[in-house]
Amino acid sequence: MTASRESVGEFELIRRFFNRRPPVALELGIGDDAALLRTGRGSTLDSDALAVTTDMLVAGRHFVADVDPESLGHKALAVNLSDLAAMGARPEAFTLALALPTVDESWLETFARGMFVLADRHGCELAGGDTTRGPLTICITAIGRVPAGVALRRDRAEPGDDLWVSGELGAAAWATRERLAGRGAALPGSALARLDRPEPRIALGLALRHLARAAIDLSDGLVGDLGHVCERSRVGAQLRWADVPVAEELAALPEDERIALALAGGDDYELLFTAAPENRAAIAALVARCAVALTRIGTIVPGAGVTVRDARGRAVALSSAGFEHFR
Amino acid sequence: MTASRESVGEFELIRRFFNRRPPVALELGIGDDAALLRTGRGSTLDSDALAVTTDMLVAGRHFVADVDPESLGHKALAVNLSDLAAMGARPEAFTLALALPTVDESWLETFARGMFVLADRHGCELAGGDTTRGPLTICITAIGRVPAGVALRRDRAEPGDDLWVSGELGAAAWATRERLAGRGAALPGSALARLDRPEPRIALGLALRHLARAAIDLSDGLVGDLGHVCERSRVGAQLRWADVPVAEELAALPEDERIALALAGGDDYELLFTAAPENRAAIAALVARCAVALTRIGTIVPGAGVTVRDARGRAVALSSAGFEHFR
Repeated sequence: MTASRESVGEFELIRRFFNRRPPVALELGIGDDAALLRTGRGSTLDSDALAVTTDMLVAGRHFVADVDPESLGHKALAVNLSDLAAMGARPEAFTLALALPTVDESWLETFARGMFVLADRHGCELAGGDTTRGPLTICITAIGRVPAGVALRRDRAEPGDDLWVSGELGAAAWATRERLAGRGAALPGSALARLDRPEPRIALGLALRHLARAAIDLSDGLVGDLGHVCERSRVGAQLRWADVPVAEELAALPEDERIALALAGGDDYELLFTAAPENRAAIAALVARCAVALTRIGTIVPGAGVTVRDARGRAVALSSAGFEHFR
Repeated sequence: MTASRESVGEFELIRRFFNRRPPVALELGIGDDAALLRTGRGSTLDSDALAVTTDMLVAGRHFVADVDPESLGHKALAVNLSDLAAMGARPEAFTLALALPTVDESWLETFARGMFVLADRHGCELAGGDTTRGPLTICITAIGRVPAGVALRRDRAEPGDDLWVSGELGAAAWATRERLAGRGAALPGSALARLDRPEPRIALGLALRHLARAAIDLSDGLVGDLGHVCERSRVGAQLRWADVPVAEELAALPEDERIALALAGGDDYELLFTAAPENRAAIAALVARCAVALTRIGTIVPGAGVTVRDARGRAVALSSAGFEHFR
């Protein structure tokens, strides 16, 4: 539903004003998929922490104003649940703040249905809300629970770890591009579903608690999000392009477009995670249990930054402007 | 900072679409100042619950776009902390989602300062955030902690309870009116402070845990918010106008204007609470401890609705359109 991409660099700047040292009450502060808040006094690493995450979606930026409200209700919650999944947290509750230009009962009913169907599937309850008149804006804050010691964080990757990704990549970014080009009506339902109805990988996140080391959900694009893991973990990563699971909808596209969409397209809401090689069999067994494809696509290495290797093992460079194309 | 008041009736309607029966995971769902979320398994009424509340502020509606950003940062957090105070909850953490039309570093620095000074005073930590380009919109979700059994709820008032209010009322609404009329420059600093820098009554809320029965924070206006307590508690209330603590800034105004501003002006962010008469002395002792005026202004009675009595004890009617004037 992305109508146009952020100027990421500029808005990353903003973090500077709000990023302070994580205080004692927080197990983990700003900079991961969700913050971890200790519950109770004298908490140990085995006691539950609360994972808290918030996302604001603005019409004309994150979605087109005439988007199907049922999809919008689903996606507004899904992007938050995806953050909880990336922490290995079990969703518990969420709040909804909604600014609306007008009160359209049919729109609201459909929006609420899309949101609640997803919420009910994950046992996540609407705990509070606020509604006001204003430009169409949706802000959801989701709260989940995870034992602090097993939460999946961005800063835990270690050299030698396998790099894994769930699902297939690129279809959502392709659907966005086609829709913006006025070719949305010709899109296959599978690509629209990937864009409008992403499935937060909650079951996978829970199953990975004791198997994965670091994790992040893919919202900005594989290479960019992998870069966040590398930066926070102070490691590098080698990515094998030939192993990246590219969505079948992209099969007919030229390779440079497939690369751009699958590596930097964004909006996939799959989980990217690292794990020790001895956990390969246990992770492979999750494919059936969690009903999602899991693919090894690279390795964590000492150093810094993400290197992409082509089918012949050669390092290839990505352009700086959003990694749109190989050079 | 209210630029214009909501059409409350219309936006109340929206609740219908989101208001479902509080589920088991929630001690208390939508309809109070904050939701209460159980922590841990097998929680008892003595174990901590989390109080969660969210507010969305939109430029041109809740504040003027050129408002002092330091005040805006303060107030955006203050209105949420006020909700926690009304639950008797201790603030722990909050999330901030911010849509900005442009990235103005000086504005952001000042906004963050206003927010953090208040947050630090109450030991409340920024746990996460989201920033995006869009019409200036601020959404804060605040999380506090309170033993479930002593949380101050709207639905606990009982006939015979005293009705109490903190502070003085009406100055914020008067400052809004004067500012909208272009007379903002002539406003005394005390009235501007009441509007732009409301002090959430956290210490009072904590002190009232075992003394008050029902509580609400005053955002919509005394009579309207008291009506919420009556409705949820299935009781009526008799309010003595002569006892209502009207802000001294309103002393020179005609009585009908003082009544309108103090009873229906809104934006006071004081606490309105009910308590058994045997707690009068204990509550009066909180004035010094919490450094805030506390005034008995009426009584909870059987029945329904709010009756206002004038200095001679006569019931007076309020007009339906926002209670602007006595008839």
